[in-house]
Amino acid sequence: MDTRPVGVFDSGIGGLTVVKEIMKIIPNEDIVYFGDTARVPYGSKSKETIIKFARQDARFLIEKGVKAIVIACNTASAFSLETLKNELSIPIIGVIEPGAHAAVKSTVNGNIGIIGTEGTIGSGAYEKAILKLRSDYRISGYPCPLFVPLVEEGWAGSKVSYMVAEEYLKPIKKSDIDTLVMGCTHYPLLKNVVADILGEGVTLINPAEETALELKKILEEKNLNSNQIKSCYNFYVSDNPEKFSRVGSNFLNEKIYNIQKIDIEKY
Amino acid sequence: MDTRPVGVFDSGIGGLTVVKEIMKIIPNEDIVYFGDTARVPYGSKSKETIIKFARQDARFLIEKGVKAIVIACNTASAFSLETLKNELSIPIIGVIEPGAHAAVKSTVNGNIGIIGTEGTIGSGAYEKAILKLRSDYRISGYPCPLFVPLVEEGWAGSKVSYMVAEEYLKPIKKSDIDTLVMGCTHYPLLKNVVADILGEGVTLINPAEETALELKKILEEKNLNSNQIKSCYNFYVSDNPEKFSRVGSNFLNEKIYNIQKIDIEKY
Repeated sequence: MDTRPVGVFDSGIGGLTVVKEIMKIIPNEDIVYFGDTARVPYGSKSKETIIKFARQDARFLIEKGVKAIVIACNTASAFSLETLKNELSIPIIGVIEPGAHAAVKSTVNGNIGIIGTEGTIGSGAYEKAILKLRSDYRISGYPCPLFVPLVEEGWAGSKVSYMVAEEYLKPIKKSDIDTLVMGCTHYPLLKNVVADILGEGVTLINPAEETALELKKILEEKNLNSNQIKSCYNFYVSDNPEKFSRVGSNFLNEKIYNIQKIDIEKY
Repeated sequence: MDTRPVGVFDSGIGGLTVVKEIMKIIPNEDIVYFGDTARVPYGSKSKETIIKFARQDARFLIEKGVKAIVIACNTASAFSLETLKNELSIPIIGVIEPGAHAAVKSTVNGNIGIIGTEGTIGSGAYEKAILKLRSDYRISGYPCPLFVPLVEEGWAGSKVSYMVAEEYLKPIKKSDIDTLVMGCTHYPLLKNVVADILGEGVTLINPAEETALELKKILEEKNLNSNQIKSCYNFYVSDNPEKFSRVGSNFLNEKIYNIQKIDIEKY
């Protein structure tokens, strides 16, 4: 039994959708979360910059004594997973491979779509991960840059969101995709909008759940799991803890306590 | 005659609307521009974080030997102008006071509206600057957080932009505001949308022009102006010089050369 906490980092607030699944699937694990709210978003920035940020984020979590790190941000997973795996000795889990697994399990016709940030889609990371599992599948990626600001503005169910989604999803509606990966942590909050537009013929995949299951598997395999009864959650951000607490509650569906601000540029 | 360059910094790309006016009004001045594209946006972040970023941005420009600094970003002007003025010995010019002057010159009925980021509107900086000039005027601020991502997505003239603007401008349409300050560097690209919705009864103010005039005045007063014939423009960013070059051309209406990437966290 290893009672050290699991570390989770994200560009900001969206990674809480992953935390929510971890809390549900392995409720006995402590969690230390870092959200880089001073430098958010990651989705529109370059690979080089995201690797630099991810290294700092991971260093902070390691200083907090974590036994494994989950990269909850799709863009950071796409750009920095390999680097962090090579450089660190604890298990590092991204959201892309679990998302790819879930998509492969779900599809019937082998046509999979991915929606995500510019960075995630441009990286081709989901495509590579899926083709590694099934080289005969056809994958198409569609960047949806306005989805994150719409969710952060609290407009997820609005007429504007439907109009923006109609525009972004147009090519998917015309295609014969039967499975769509919501490849950004904010997108599950737009699930109803996307589902309404695409209809029942398309299954939506949220990589968060599969990521939490993958974490559980790895902790068990490596005898790193904890079986304590009461678990403890600590949240750190690089800016605006009040806003994180306020907006984050929508992601987590519960109140957030224990938030502290840190200077991530020192790591 | 002082041929040292003028420094301009911004959260990213939007400050180029200010650079454009400086190039037009004082074409004989060299410019060094810094856009903090690794940490953009500033508009949704806290005062404390923006002051820290602005100090780093200014330190970088000073290392480049600038004779004056223009804070082209409204949020950074709102939060950090006083701090930088106190800490630095060269002239520091923000966009808020020039924008306030222009609004006061324009209004007939004394009812002025401000649109801007969460940070700029929350700071009340325009309100304070206008009330200092005319304490009897009535000022109302309206944050428009989706305007920046819409412009960055290249959707400025789209149906979605009209719909978003209709929503944000609803209270202004109902008011008797006769002058509206576009208090964010991205907003001039939405000028037509805003003008269509508000009609002829509302004059739109772009603080960029007034800021360039203020810079000209200060350089002349302090004998810091240059009368060289050919001027030189250098651009620095903290991320993605290629994207800056591509998107920035829309702001500047001309090609951008001489872009270099730097690590702003070192300053």
